[in-house]
Parts: sequence; C-alpha cells; structure tokens
Amino acid sequence: MAKEITSRNENYSQWYNDIVVKAGLADHSAVRGCMVIKPYGFAIWEKIQSQLDKMFKETGHQNAYFPLFIPKSFFSKEASHVEGFAKECAIVTHYRLKNDPNGKGVVVDPEAKLEEELIVRPTSETIIWNTYRSWIQSYRDLPILINQWANVVRWEMRTRLFLRTAEFLWQEGHTAHATQAEAIAEAEQMVNVYAKFVQDWMSVPVIIGTKSEAERFAGAVETYCIEALMQDGKALQAGTSHFLGQNFAKAFDVKFSSKEGTLDYVWATSWGVSTRLVGALIMAHSDDNGLVLPPKLAPTQVVFVPIYKSEEELAKISEKVKELKKSIESKGITCLYDDRDNCKPGFKFAEYEMKGFPVRIAIGPKDLEKGTVEIARRDTLTKQFVNQDNVAEYVENLLKDIQDNLFNKALNFRSENTTKVDSYDEFKRVLDDKGGFVLAHWDGSRETEEIIKEETKATIRCIPLDGEIEEGKCIRTGKPSNRRVIFARAY
Amino acid sequence: MAKEITSRNENYSQWYNDIVVKAGLADHSAVRGCMVIKPYGFAIWEKIQSQLDKMFKETGHQNAYFPLFIPKSFFSKEASHVEGFAKECAIVTHYRLKNDPNGKGVVVDPEAKLEEELIVRPTSETIIWNTYRSWIQSYRDLPILINQWANVVRWEMRTRLFLRTAEFLWQEGHTAHATQAEAIAEAEQMVNVYAKFVQDWMSVPVIIGTKSEAERFAGAVETYCIEALMQDGKALQAGTSHFLGQNFAKAFDVKFSSKEGTLDYVWATSWGVSTRLVGALIMAHSDDNGLVLPPKLAPTQVVFVPIYKSEEELAKISEKVKELKKSIESKGITCLYDDRDNCKPGFKFAEYEMKGFPVRIAIGPKDLEKGTVEIARRDTLTKQFVNQDNVAEYVENLLKDIQDNLFNKALNFRSENTTKVDSYDEFKRVLDDKGGFVLAHWDGSRETEEIIKEETKATIRCIPLDGEIEEGKCIRTGKPSNRRVIFARAY
Repeated sequence: MAKEITSRNENYSQWYNDIVVKAGLADHSAVRGCMVIKPYGFAIWEKIQSQLDKMFKETGHQNAYFPLFIPKSFFSKEASHVEGFAKECAIVTHYRLKNDPNGKGVVVDPEAKLEEELIVRPTSETIIWNTYRSWIQSYRDLPILINQWANVVRWEMRTRLFLRTAEFLWQEGHTAHATQAEAIAEAEQMVNVYAKFVQDWMSVPVIIGTKSEAERFAGAVETYCIEALMQDGKALQAGTSHFLGQNFAKAFDVKFSSKEGTLDYVWATSWGVSTRLVGALIMAHSDDNGLVLPPKLAPTQVVFVPIYKSEEELAKISEKVKELKKSIESKGITCLYDDRDNCKPGFKFAEYEMKGFPVRIAIGPKDLEKGTVEIARRDTLTKQFVNQDNVAEYVENLLKDIQDNLFNKALNFRSENTTKVDSYDEFKRVLDDKGGFVLAHWDGSRETEEIIKEETKATIRCIPLDGEIEEGKCIRTGKPSNRRVIFARAY
Repeated sequence: MAKEITSRNENYSQWYNDIVVKAGLADHSAVRGCMVIKPYGFAIWEKIQSQLDKMFKETGHQNAYFPLFIPKSFFSKEASHVEGFAKECAIVTHYRLKNDPNGKGVVVDPEAKLEEELIVRPTSETIIWNTYRSWIQSYRDLPILINQWANVVRWEMRTRLFLRTAEFLWQEGHTAHATQAEAIAEAEQMVNVYAKFVQDWMSVPVIIGTKSEAERFAGAVETYCIEALMQDGKALQAGTSHFLGQNFAKAFDVKFSSKEGTLDYVWATSWGVSTRLVGALIMAHSDDNGLVLPPKLAPTQVVFVPIYKSEEELAKISEKVKELKKSIESKGITCLYDDRDNCKPGFKFAEYEMKGFPVRIAIGPKDLEKGTVEIARRDTLTKQFVNQDNVAEYVENLLKDIQDNLFNKALNFRSENTTKVDSYDEFKRVLDDKGGFVLAHWDGSRETEEIIKEETKATIRCIPLDGEIEEGKCIRTGKPSNRRVIFARAY
C-alpha cells in the first residue's frame, strides 16, 4: 500500500494528492473544482470544527445561519469588495427546469428567469450587514458576536483537494461593535484564537502578522493572518481576521445611537478558516509512508493489530486486547481493534501508516507469554516493547509526546528554512535554492511588492506583529525601511 | 412583551409567525424564501443536530460531504426523481460577473456561460450514487453507511419560516447495501431513530407509517414517515426514510460482485430530517405567552431573576444565586443569571416566557430571609416556593417532569383529535369542525386518494405500521379495504 505513494522528493505535489486519495480523505467529484470529502477526511474536519466552535463560544460568540444566496446588487455596494469577490462566482439566473420539447432530459425554462440574479456566497459580509441594519438601533444592541459554519463557492480555475476548491466548507465570524478600539481588539483576539488552535491542536507553528495592502481582504482596513511553512518550503495562509472599519456599515447604512446620543456607523470585523486547514495538516507532517496526524485531531488515536496463526491464539489475544483497550479508553483515548481475518498484519500496518493513526499496538502469542505488547509510533516509525500493566499510562504519555514532537519538528524545520537576506540577488538565490520564509526589508509601496512578485513569484506573507524595529534598505529599490517583512512563494 | 403575540384562536398562522420572530428564532431575509436563523433559533437546531448525530453514529453511520452542485443531466437519469425534484430549483448558468459597461454595478458576463448548467442540490441521491459507482466494486465494500449535514434548495412558492423555506438545513443519510432485506431493515431502523428522537427529545408523539404511492418520495419504492399533530389540528410530516430499491443503482450503474460471484445492482436507502423540526417544536407546545421548549432541547434550561431595590440587596442575592447556580450546574443543567440593571423583573419574566426557558427562579430579600426561592415552570405557568437547600434536586426532577408533561399533553391532545369515521359525510364534517387525524378506510387506489384530496384538501398522512387489520369499505368509493389509513389536512 505505502509503495503506491509518490515520494516527496520525486514530486511533492503528486505526493500530496496521493495521500489525500489513498488515505481516503477526499476525492474529485463530477462537478468541476468541487470535492467529495470522504468519511475519514470529514472526521478530521469534525474534530477541527468541534474544537474551534468551543473556542469561539468561550470567547462569547454564538452561531447563526444566513442565506446561501446574495442578490447581485449587494456586491456593488462596497467598492473594493466587489473587485475582490464578485467576479469569479456561481450565478443563479433561473429557478425552473422543464422537459426538453425536442427530446429526452430537461432544459432550463426560459420563462423562469430571476428578476435579479443571485450569487452563491463567496463570503457573507454583504448579506449579513444588510441583515444587521434591522438588528442594530442602539449601543444596547452591540456588540453582535456571531459565527456561521457554512459552504461557500469561489470559481477557482486551478483547484487542489482541500487547498483550493470551488466549493469549500468554512466558518465566518461577523461581529459588530460600537467603537473602533473594540473592533480592532476583536480582530486581534480572533487571529490569536486561530494561532493557538493551529499550534496547540494541529502542531503547526505559525507567524502572526498583518497583510500588506495588496494582499488585504477586499473591503478590510487591516487583515491579520497566520502563516505556516510547508515541507516544500512554500508558505500557506492558514487563517485570516479582518478589521473592516466602517466600510460595510456605510455600504449598508448600519448606524446606531450611541450612549452620548450621536448617530454613528457601526464598526465591523470578520474572520474565517476553512477546510484548507485539513490540507495544511496533511502537508505539514506527513511523510513518504502516508498521512501523519497530531493525536489531538486523529479520528482514532490507537489501533490494535493481533498477530496470530490459529483461531485459538486469536481468541486469547482478543481477550487481552479487550482488557487493554478498555483501560486505554478510560483515559478518553479513542481505540480501534482490527481483527479482520481477510488481511495480514503487514497489510494492516501499511494501512494504518497510510491513514496516520498515531499509535499502533501489535500483540501476538509471545507477547501474551511475556506480558508485553509492541507499540509503534507513527511520527518516528519507531517501536518499543511495553509491559501490559503500563500500557494505558504509556500510551497517554506517548500521545502527548507525539503531539509535541510534531510541533517541535515543524518548528525546527521552519527555523532552518527562515533566512534573513539583505540583497536582491541573495533574495532570489534563497527563493530558488532553498525556499522557505525570507526576511527582508521592503520600502512599503504596493508597486515594489508587485514588481518583486512578478520577478520572483514571491509575495509578502505578512508583516510580523512581533517583528523588531530595524533600520534597513528595501532589497529591490534601496529605499529606507524600518522593519523586515516575510516573503515566500505560497499556496 | 407577551401582549404583542396574536392569540392562537385569533389567527394561528400569525401566532406562529409572531413567536418565531419575537422569540428571536428566525427572520425573513432579503432573498425571497430564504430565512436568517438567529442565534437563539440556531442554538435549538444545534441541540437537535448534536443528539441526532450521536444517534446516527451509534447506529454505525459516518458523516461525509458531497458537492452543493449537481450537473443537470444527472436529474434525468432516474425517471420519477426528475419529476419530483428537478423542476423547481435554483439553476447556476454562469460563473462570472463583469463591470456593467453601461453604468454602475456588475452584470453577468455572457461569455462565462457553463457548458452544462448546475442545479443547487434539492436532495443528493444523484450526485451521491454517481460517486458510489467508483467506491463500490465488491460485497466487501458494502454496506456504505453515510450521512451528510447540508443546506438544500427547493424553489417553493409559498414559504413559512422553518416549515417551508427555499433554502433549508438538513441531514440526508445515503446507504448502500448488498441485499434488499438489509436495505429495508436500514430504512425501518432510521424511521425508528427519528421517532425515538422526536418523542423522547422533542416531546412530540408521532405515528410511524408508510406513505401511499402518491405521497412517496420521488424515486423510492417505499417511504416510511413519522407524522405529528399540531395544535390547530393539522398534520406535520416530521421525517422520512426511503427504501429506494435498486432505482438509483440502475440509473447510475452501480454494481457489485457478490460473495457468490454474481454481478448485482446495489440496494439503497435515504433518510432525512430538516430545520422543519424546529417549526414542529414551536407549534407543538407553545402557547399565547410565547415559546414553550422541552428541557432537553432548550438552549438554556434555567434562568435566575433577582428581585431587589438597592445595590446592597442585589449584592446579597447575587452571592446566593452564584451558590445555587453552581449546584444546579453540577447536575449538567444549563443556567443563566440575568442581573441586567436596565429592565424590571416583570419585563424579564415576560421575555423568558416568550423565549420558552423551561424554569425561572426568582429570588428577593424575603426569600433570603426565609431561605427559599420562587420557582416557576413554563409549561403550566405555575409557581412554587422551594427551600434553597433542595433547589438543585427539585430543578432536576422538575425538568424531567416538564419533559414528560409536554409529551403527555401532546399525546392527550392527539387522542382527543383522532377520530374514526365510516362515511364520507362524517369524514368531511370532522375535517371541517374538528380537524386532527381521521382514521378511515380507503380502497388503496391513487385515483380515489386524488379525488378525496381535491374535494376535502385532506391527504393520506400514512398507513400506520401498527394499524389493525379490519375489514371495511372505502369512505369515498365503497370498495373493500382491509385497514384504516390516517387522513388529515397537513403542513
């Protein structure tokens, strides 16, 4: 089974695709650019959802649901938003089919044309702010702290499973505030929630920063983001949180009467992460044997595989496994016992390596004699014999260790692949030879950023929030700069 | 606040709408027929989802996700399915907007026309069975037991919040089996899961039955359903489970090699419930003061309201509430302490009655002296003084009692409004004067059912699974019948 995966060195992009398909995470569908998320892939997304939902609720947010469709005219109301979103989208123009008068099948009924076309939401700022207008009159109605879990559609030309698909699943938070300071604090809070989730649950280190003007969300005053580094040296944006100023309140005329009696426009934020996180998770940790999952997001954390020749041996092993499984599960750890009789242990080993089960426990007749089991960890592919009496505690510690090890490994990789450069030649050489994050000075202009992008395919991933003030010269123009920004080629 | 609700006697339909809007459950949106589910309404749906999801997983199902869009040609593949579903639907014909050359705003780019139109899914049998074709080769790949939580769109002309909307949220199970018997058992299992959920969690009694041919799901061999009775004497279909035979396997050419080596078509089921359940929940129990919720589905089960005059009194009360709240919460019961200073207790009482909080606890200075609290239950609107030492246990029992009482009340109502009739005159009189479920003989023909529907607006809600065999004559044609079916006017 493992043999079927392309190696990372041979073709990183094919390696990624092989894992997604062969670990049973997702498939292409009959609809261009749309994927089918298979049960194992969806189980990972459910784990992500469940933890994020908890973190959103702990920070005071409630879930709600807004329409899938947005009237076309809504998009024209916020000038920069329409540029960014309304162009490549799915457009509903009719509401009825009829039998084809010229033959078999059905055709669009030309008489059922909508007066105004509906856009399948690419993001929901417009429909939500149109709704908020009737919800907000006074400062007493604020803040509104709402999140929605939804599907959205962006008509992407080049798609990749999880990373970029026409339809994807996500959450989008949309909050409304009485003051600018409160809205900025909210946007910052949520990028920090994302960072905490991605680091503590996905074991992926991220850099928190703000986007340059060119990379900012269409309609935002400031976009906060978290950026992660993948194994091929390319960056991946894992989540964004936007301070929207009063742009949408002005576009949809949402005002409130303040405590002081004035009538002011409402301040807004929005923030989102998507099924793209599953793509990031796969890319960050997996190896040439298949998927590697951090224990906190693995649908099943431990698998037992019996090694036996006779039915009698299997019966004895099964009895012992039942006991060990129960004691491990009592610690809140999820286990599977694979006693399928139609495939051999070696096949099972390869299958669970492919699927990224963090811990595999093999147990055979000799183990029964000696009172041991053989425990293999997926991250390092190493094995160890462990006394049966200590299995539950050992596994509990091992899962924590794997979670930490994956993070540290990814952090080391990022450190090794983060390079400070001070000249444009060096910049280009590092991008081509090594990739990774490149810390360089930039003059702050949109034009220079555009030129660098055209010449090197690298973009400014973010201006790190915790970056040092340091005088320097822009690598491209030589103009003065007072801090380094992070450049990289990106997904 | 309560004063603003239309009474049930005055206008039942308006009463329903008032509750939905004034309890903050949902709102109409700017998009025709689509609703906004507000946080409080969505919290009820989350409770429903969470329990159903648990029951689906306990019966061996996994979640997955299939595309929102379905190619138009897929609908023509199953003859009766296209009749039932492909007609009134949202159709995506283009994938790009462009700036209007004649002025402001954006227009559909005529050059971005799709080769084949995409239908926004009204239900997903076709795209899922098209996918299953590549997942199923052998009996070893069966059964497939998959559920999806999703939004669907049906272009309804007359919409009502929750009960009938163009877009709604639902779950749809889609299973694939090697034998007919296994598929039928699955369809029956799932209608029983629905019945258990609606009765035990929603406190709404249901009758389990099968649909007549005319009311069957488009593409099904047999449709199982649960039918509930609302307070206005109209029936509401709360969930359906379909045995699809091999219809979709044949339409999408899904075959498997059996254990015996033959190549057979796969057997299918599908089953679903939707946000309509929230509508059923509202209609079943609520009264002229607002929403009444069964405790198991109430987002918050208990609210504390302090009665005070001075800050000092409030401080003392708050201290006591903190203690009581903690002890109630330790039993897994959700509580809210409403110490808002800008509205009076009477206003709060009305608000929580409107929102259907099952239990309200008022506590004032006299209660502190006496060591009591005043506990009001929403279902009966009665109050009782309870010793503070016993509050947690009292509330725990009270919530169970409310849950049971709501069920029994609804069951009594249904018994009182279920009538056996043996003549067509009586049938029509009962429908007009009393409504409710009418048990009558029917000759089993589609034509007779159609005539009865035209003449009385009543439809066959179901043929009860536990109905007695009883010889009789069809109320409309006098032809022989061997069992009664349930007629009603329905939502």
